[in-house]
Amino acid sequence: MSEQIERLQVGIVGASGYGGVQLVRLLQDHPAIEIAYLGGDSSAGKNFADLYPHLAHVVNLPIEPIDVVTIASRCQVVFLALPNGLACELAPQLLAKGCSILDLSADYRFSDLDIYSQWYKIPRTDRETAAMAVYGLPELYRAKLANAKIVGCPGCYPTASLLALSPLLKQGLIDTNTAIIDAKSGTSGGGRQAKTHLLLAEADNNFTAYSVAGHRHTPEIEQICSDLASHEVKVQFTPHLIPMVRGILSTVYATIRDPGLVTEDLIVIYKAFYRSSPFVRILDGGVYPQTKWAAGTNLCYIGVEVDPRTGRVIVMSAIDNLIKGQAGQAIQCLNAMMGWDETLGLPQMSFYP
Amino acid sequence: MSEQIERLQVGIVGASGYGGVQLVRLLQDHPAIEIAYLGGDSSAGKNFADLYPHLAHVVNLPIEPIDVVTIASRCQVVFLALPNGLACELAPQLLAKGCSILDLSADYRFSDLDIYSQWYKIPRTDRETAAMAVYGLPELYRAKLANAKIVGCPGCYPTASLLALSPLLKQGLIDTNTAIIDAKSGTSGGGRQAKTHLLLAEADNNFTAYSVAGHRHTPEIEQICSDLASHEVKVQFTPHLIPMVRGILSTVYATIRDPGLVTEDLIVIYKAFYRSSPFVRILDGGVYPQTKWAAGTNLCYIGVEVDPRTGRVIVMSAIDNLIKGQAGQAIQCLNAMMGWDETLGLPQMSFYP
Amino acid sequence: MSEQIERLQVGIVGASGYGGVQLVRLLQDHPAIEIAYLGGDSSAGKNFADLYPHLAHVVNLPIEPIDVVTIASRCQVVFLALPNGLACELAPQLLAKGCSILDLSADYRFSDLDIYSQWYKIPRTDRETAAMAVYGLPELYRAKLANAKIVGCPGCYPTASLLALSPLLKQGLIDTNTAIIDAKSGTSGGGRQAKTHLLLAEADNNFTAYSVAGHRHTPEIEQICSDLASHEVKVQFTPHLIPMVRGILSTVYATIRDPGLVTEDLIVIYKAFYRSSPFVRILDGGVYPQTKWAAGTNLCYIGVEVDPRTGRVIVMSAIDNLIKGQAGQAIQCLNAMMGWDETLGLPQMSFYP
Amino acid sequence: MSEQIERLQVGIVGASGYGGVQLVRLLQDHPAIEIAYLGGDSSAGKNFADLYPHLAHVVNLPIEPIDVVTIASRCQVVFLALPNGLACELAPQLLAKGCSILDLSADYRFSDLDIYSQWYKIPRTDRETAAMAVYGLPELYRAKLANAKIVGCPGCYPTASLLALSPLLKQGLIDTNTAIIDAKSGTSGGGRQAKTHLLLAEADNNFTAYSVAGHRHTPEIEQICSDLASHEVKVQFTPHLIPMVRGILSTVYATIRDPGLVTEDLIVIYKAFYRSSPFVRILDGGVYPQTKWAAGTNLCYIGVEVDPRTGRVIVMSAIDNLIKGQAGQAIQCLNAMMGWDETLGLPQMSFYP
Repeated sequence: MSEQIERLQVGIVGASGYGGVQLVRLLQDHPAIEIAYLGGDSSAGKNFADLYPHLAHVVNLPIEPIDVVTIASRCQVVFLALPNGLACELAPQLLAKGCSILDLSADYRFSDLDIYSQWYKIPRTDRETAAMAVYGLPELYRAKLANAKIVGCPGCYPTASLLALSPLLKQGLIDTNTAIIDAKSGTSGGGRQAKTHLLLAEADNNFTAYSVAGHRHTPEIEQICSDLASHEVKVQFTPHLIPMVRGILSTVYATIRDPGLVTEDLIVIYKAFYRSSPFVRILDGGVYPQTKWAAGTNLCYIGVEVDPRTGRVIVMSAIDNLIKGQAGQAIQCLNAMMGWDETLGLPQMSFYP
Repeated sequence: MSEQIERLQVGIVGASGYGGVQLVRLLQDHPAIEIAYLGGDSSAGKNFADLYPHLAHVVNLPIEPIDVVTIASRCQVVFLALPNGLACELAPQLLAKGCSILDLSADYRFSDLDIYSQWYKIPRTDRETAAMAVYGLPELYRAKLANAKIVGCPGCYPTASLLALSPLLKQGLIDTNTAIIDAKSGTSGGGRQAKTHLLLAEADNNFTAYSVAGHRHTPEIEQICSDLASHEVKVQFTPHLIPMVRGILSTVYATIRDPGLVTEDLIVIYKAFYRSSPFVRILDGGVYPQTKWAAGTNLCYIGVEVDPRTGRVIVMSAIDNLIKGQAGQAIQCLNAMMGWDETLGLPQMSFYP
Repeated sequence: MSEQIERLQVGIVGASGYGGVQLVRLLQDHPAIEIAYLGGDSSAGKNFADLYPHLAHVVNLPIEPIDVVTIASRCQVVFLALPNGLACELAPQLLAKGCSILDLSADYRFSDLDIYSQWYKIPRTDRETAAMAVYGLPELYRAKLANAKIVGCPGCYPTASLLALSPLLKQGLIDTNTAIIDAKSGTSGGGRQAKTHLLLAEADNNFTAYSVAGHRHTPEIEQICSDLASHEVKVQFTPHLIPMVRGILSTVYATIRDPGLVTEDLIVIYKAFYRSSPFVRILDGGVYPQTKWAAGTNLCYIGVEVDPRTGRVIVMSAIDNLIKGQAGQAIQCLNAMMGWDETLGLPQMSFYP
Repeated sequence: MSEQIERLQVGIVGASGYGGVQLVRLLQDHPAIEIAYLGGDSSAGKNFADLYPHLAHVVNLPIEPIDVVTIASRCQVVFLALPNGLACELAPQLLAKGCSILDLSADYRFSDLDIYSQWYKIPRTDRETAAMAVYGLPELYRAKLANAKIVGCPGCYPTASLLALSPLLKQGLIDTNTAIIDAKSGTSGGGRQAKTHLLLAEADNNFTAYSVAGHRHTPEIEQICSDLASHEVKVQFTPHLIPMVRGILSTVYATIRDPGLVTEDLIVIYKAFYRSSPFVRILDGGVYPQTKWAAGTNLCYIGVEVDPRTGRVIVMSAIDNLIKGQAGQAIQCLNAMMGWDETLGLPQMSFYP
């Protein structure tokens, strides 16, 4: 890409966490983007390289206080990588000043704000802004993203789970009330804040479920499932913590409505469904995704198996929770918004091993 | 225990693998047992301490060739820790010579040998011996074990899964055809043979399912489930590989028949069911088992949660795959056979962290 | 041990951290000890099982506020497992009331309190108490421990390093100013307080040195080295963080004074030096210690190699940093103080793998 | 880079191992190169995607038998990623047919083939070819690489160690016979062949030294050190295995000749020495390299500390053993050979965490 082409000026609010550092890392290599602003709260005043010394040779930017006027004066697009409940205060102001928004928190993922407030215990008054927001899963909402001014990027668990379930729901292939999502995530999903249970000494060589029957990604998954199925869907969702850094594997179970369907049929259906989705890779029969394959990339690997003994389909999906499950997906959404190739600037090959 | 009491003389055939080293380690500390023989095939002629130098100061025994006459002349009880298909050749001979047998392989777990042969591709002619064998899960078959001469010790996945499911099946609390077992194991379950996919470089920071809809522990689980439910039960069983050494977590899903049951009801039922089982610990509501809690012990921790939104119960069980899932359980069975306290010589407190 | 024998009543102050949980775990199994008191500061009022649910079936004790009168009324011996600078306030009071003290912090490790104050930035006024304290490395100070009322238990790095160096220093075999200790520790050495750099997401698949040329264990190591060599010794000490939970490996380098010495000579010397030390295992030539061998035990494995090309000896020592490097060693010291067998109640066989 | 420019046609012999997959991954993204041939021995006949399914969407190449005529007919440059002792048979033939060679094995690293034969137990007859070979560490031999036809790429340990030591040796700052290299590597350095001690179950949560005083990288390091110092240098080199996948940290000790030198002086010297080396990053005082910073990149991070108490300098260097320590460095060498920008196609930002 020639030097003369003007790069899109973008800002990142919440640059110090894992979402922030992924965005900085990926946008730094994006051929059509220039980072014009990094903002933070507790980290304001520091240099980004103080927090991540290994990037000092490529990123020489200060973390500035979060100021809407400053941001809007420099940025056409703003990524918000903040704890839940902060984006909904910033976004309306930034939109009013002409910025486009990609929000990585839960704030703009819900079409029904009452459900958001019920699960997140945060009251909301920005209904007008929320109504404009598009759910940032390009594989499902590519067309809407093309005209979006504000995008609520999905959580890491919903991304993996919805990509596994969507073809089944869209085609009406399963008994929807049988859907069970047994999901497993590396500990980086818990962020960079120090928490005892995420210490290596606690989490390594350990495996456990958490938030059983009550995780906040449940209503988010159900909203999109219901949209796809065109009727209300309830899913069982159980997250687990894997003793590793990056990656999510979702193992999804559902009873097939047509007992005649075999594994190969479903692989054909999945491949067709994701034909225009360069980041979704449907695996051959008998091959199951490994999280390591996706690490460091924006890819989602999907394996499908029908069990004729039980009449169920088992779908497994693997992503990098911090890329396709977070920062990479936000950039993919931006690519879609700008009309660029969806893969622009996004890694497609994992380092292995 | 006074020095004068005569210790039971036991042998271990297959002492070089992980099953063997666990047995040696545990039996060495058992107050009523003395190891009288270690046998192996490829490792015969070596000293045990050549394979496990860290035990040289406590175990000074050679690994001898596998010879039935020698074994029977020295041992009252024999542990067989061999690949599938070898115990069924040795056991009849050892029984004939008066030895009692604890087999850690799959050979004596099946009441129907045709099912064994179908899943393991090994023909069988020892029907009489197999008919004598008791399934070595003391929590379910304690009474039968008291009179057993040969015990087929359960696999690691069946142990964790059956302890989670048994109260539900026995009491008829669930719709049995909805049972799904999403199980996860550390890589030591794959044994000490060098295999590429179990290399640290491959398996670390990686998570994947395997043998989906086809793992050989499925018929073993179904046999016991059917026995408990008094009708044929089919389960969905999916194993996964966790990037860690030891431990299994089984997450079990099933639809409850009585929609009025709540979490606390089930905890009461579970506690009652396992009242006489010192190694099963039912956790309080909202507490979920962690594999690290069980590491190095013969314990099984169980957490229970009813999801009123979906009408399902989610049961999680955690064990050490090499102790309660293998060597420790065999010793627990032996304790039951001998009429000793079931906990004799078995660790009940994990080192943490 | 018969029930009639009266068990020694002990207390643990600072029961909530990793030092505390190891002590509880080990003392619970010790045949001559009963835990009579658990104390804590921020955790006071909780039950021990709230912090460590996996021990609920064996430990049913509250964590009480730290009160000297209460402690002394119940306990003959008190373990202090507190941050540096707190034991030196409690110990004089407890001693005055007749308690014996085993301190796991740095407070009573130094014969020269000025060096302590210089490195730890904590002023000291308890010179009389400090003068009574014995350095709690039984392999070197067994005789003194027999009469000790207060013991300053060594840090984890000094334990591993000193056991590797002592025979060389005591026998005058090396040029002392060439001693370099390149030490590596699992992250549990950093304790249970949540710190960002000890998160699994940061520390896993990562390896780094820290406190280079300035770690506070340096003067502690030098004090004992100087004592052994009978002249002032300066060592180079560099700690590193290993991406794992437990264990320390110290790799020690020094130039040999007599160029004719070979590996086997030194192994003989080491075996003789540690002849009466049941927890130190000198390995055969060409065998090097692995931290996993020591995990969960109070053992120290030592490997020795002379490099005739360079005239140096390389000594490697492996311990479990939380047992021989902390809680186990404190109990070993207590055994020595009480005139009991030094190994009483202390594990000598690692679970492997 | 425009489509019209002709890409350099390269082949990879030994494509199935970790060296091979890194090369494929990196070359696939290199803007001036096209992979024209993949060769293997035991893997010949398979597709590359059979071995590495996660790359199936970008690499659709068969692994072909190793045939010199075929290779030379298609490739201008050939990477040899084979076990030691095979390149020295292939390279003379390929050179004769006009190919340039980048060898990743030990075969062409030695200026004195007798030393090679002594340490590797492999006789050699290709003295003429070996005499042409340039040691592939661009930071030291950039000029020679510009005209090289055959390059012996350094091992992973030598790369990390030499980059840490070179400024000290070149400037005569240290007493060379005091140099000690305590090096630590992730287990991927052991390759993809299944070996018991590299199993996750064995190597995880474990740390050990190996090949103490006898590792084959010692003479390779000494050869280059001697070249830099202009006199014969002997070093102490001790490798250790870290329980993680990728990365090497070398901790290097040496006594400084001028006792007045302080840390900041050396940092200035190091920065000057590596001024033209874009992949070497000298860290500020008090900042020490972490292997995770380098993972997935061709970078080497170096931290320097002078200890005024002991008169030593401690230098720490971190690299990704499979990139800067293997495949990336080979590509960097090729860039130098071709007169391209040394950084072309090579990653400079790690994904973090």
